[in-house]
Amino acid sequence: MDLMRRVTLRDVARRAGVHPSTASRALNPQTREMITEVIARRVARTAQVLGYKRNPIAYGLRTNRSRIIGVLIPDIANPVFPPIIRGIEDALGAAGYTPIVANTDNDEKRAGVILENMIVRRVDGLIMATARRRDRLVERCLEEKIPLVLINRTVAGGEVCSVVNDDEFGMQLAVAHMAGCGHTRIAHLAGPLDVSTGFARHRGFFKAMRAVGLKADPRLIGLCASFSESEGRRAFLELRARNPRFTAVVAANDLLAVGCYDALDELGLRAGREVAVSGFNDMPFMDKLRPPLTTVRIPHYQMGAQAARMALARLHHPDAPIEHVTLRPELVVRGSTGRRPSPSPRGSA
Amino acid sequence: MDLMRRVTLRDVARRAGVHPSTASRALNPQTREMITEVIARRVARTAQVLGYKRNPIAYGLRTNRSRIIGVLIPDIANPVFPPIIRGIEDALGAAGYTPIVANTDNDEKRAGVILENMIVRRVDGLIMATARRRDRLVERCLEEKIPLVLINRTVAGGEVCSVVNDDEFGMQLAVAHMAGCGHTRIAHLAGPLDVSTGFARHRGFFKAMRAVGLKADPRLIGLCASFSESEGRRAFLELRARNPRFTAVVAANDLLAVGCYDALDELGLRAGREVAVSGFNDMPFMDKLRPPLTTVRIPHYQMGAQAARMALARLHHPDAPIEHVTLRPELVVRGSTGRRPSPSPRGSA
Repeated sequence: MDLMRRVTLRDVARRAGVHPSTASRALNPQTREMITEVIARRVARTAQVLGYKRNPIAYGLRTNRSRIIGVLIPDIANPVFPPIIRGIEDALGAAGYTPIVANTDNDEKRAGVILENMIVRRVDGLIMATARRRDRLVERCLEEKIPLVLINRTVAGGEVCSVVNDDEFGMQLAVAHMAGCGHTRIAHLAGPLDVSTGFARHRGFFKAMRAVGLKADPRLIGLCASFSESEGRRAFLELRARNPRFTAVVAANDLLAVGCYDALDELGLRAGREVAVSGFNDMPFMDKLRPPLTTVRIPHYQMGAQAARMALARLHHPDAPIEHVTLRPELVVRGSTGRRPSPSPRGSA
Repeated sequence: MDLMRRVTLRDVARRAGVHPSTASRALNPQTREMITEVIARRVARTAQVLGYKRNPIAYGLRTNRSRIIGVLIPDIANPVFPPIIRGIEDALGAAGYTPIVANTDNDEKRAGVILENMIVRRVDGLIMATARRRDRLVERCLEEKIPLVLINRTVAGGEVCSVVNDDEFGMQLAVAHMAGCGHTRIAHLAGPLDVSTGFARHRGFFKAMRAVGLKADPRLIGLCASFSESEGRRAFLELRARNPRFTAVVAANDLLAVGCYDALDELGLRAGREVAVSGFNDMPFMDKLRPPLTTVRIPHYQMGAQAARMALARLHHPDAPIEHVTLRPELVVRGSTGRRPSPSPRGSA
């Protein structure tokens, strides 16, 4: 035996007295359960004695599979994303795949560099939470024929697989709740309209207002350039300066709603007392705010897990029809919408 | 020219009229800036025309570098970790490396499987935020000679590189603040003592009490099995049932402090009024709690970035001396410790 030669799987199998495919399964943590305990141990011991090491880089070259799925998100520090990522990791892990997660900061140029790097690393598929309604990167993935699943946000047109929340239905829940509390002058803080979540929630707000027999007042719509606390604060203060006679704000996400809290603080007012505020997402700790935030809960973990399973399915069946999964959100009522508006609002009593 | 032959970097270089190393740099997003714009474009166009694709899997096989660093954390859904991960990603990305992050759920068996998978994937190094004071996995990494950096938590002994917070100093800040507010009966909710953060904060509490001339009462120490809200709530209620005459609680982390809020709610009491509460970490939204939480702020992003740079340094100089970096925390005073205790506490007035 050539001592300088690298020990192969075949050597291990021969020494352990099993078929190479059995040895392979025994040495792969993902498939070890398929082999009896006794055999698995014998193979493992033999591999150790011979100094055998599995080499997934060589494996990747042979099968042209990296078993890595690229995941593009705006920013892991936004509390919406950790549960999505956790869902993706758990579902991929169960199939022997691993995600590589990268933050784009909603910067298209940065996202482009990241995408090229992922292509170069030969990711087997991509999950993107960063799509704009018209998205150059999505087109690039289609060109490269990389299995792609959009998550949370989708593109206009629908030619790509996606797992998103039913944003219009979520807005219906929020608006119907506000109307049910007796509010009629309801403002909306809209997110960026070039991403589907901002767009669909904005459209959903108008539909929902009509559905409860109210008229959405265009002067009570605040447009936010990003889903951030600072934009929520700014837009709230602007609306208030322009037209203070609203008693409720339906925000397009929780960070915008938290920005409303900041603005209310500055004005010496309080959410749930002078102005009802609702959010969207139900991020961690929204139940611990002062007051706890009424919001629309999205099942983020399930969203991630579903997208991962869909990405794996596309990898194995690249020509299967495009699928769109829409998850149903629910309303969580808390203190920020706790009270009806007083009959004569501040300033006119 | 053999049309079936794979187009190589050498082909691209020859056609573009540059040296292969120039072509290589021009086609690598990480090094493109080293080449003039005109040349970089010419090489890129040539590569496109010839249908050349970089292949990092083959590159990995050649150099035996995967350019991937494995990162083990307890759970990305714990808000302490996203900023740490972001710091790691940014610092690794700047050097052309990518992290693969996995959640262990503090489950040693799960962590073991993950570690073996990472070894099999030939990660170039590891960053672990999951270390126990005596840790089998750390020993396994040392055996395998994988460059390893511990982050947030470290092992007893100090034979491994680490980036941690100065936990004892943090406790001094918290205890000195409580004492300065006039508290003398100060309780401590300790985290798990088999991890260094729980251990050092527990020891730091005793030291800090001595430093301000107070005696730590063993009956006012609540031990928590995990750094979780539910354990914080349980331990607080137990302490209170056993010995209700404390006026302040110094919790070993924010989640434990949030658990105290839950317990206080149930008792009809309020943090910062009947009982002062402080946390540790300053996770996102701790400033928005009811009341905002006084806590010890750890620079998590810097911690991640520092650990990543250290891992890369070890990769290039495996025999460099072991380094320990300790980051200095700061106290953030908010409403949860806002008031001095009343002279005669509840029940004895």
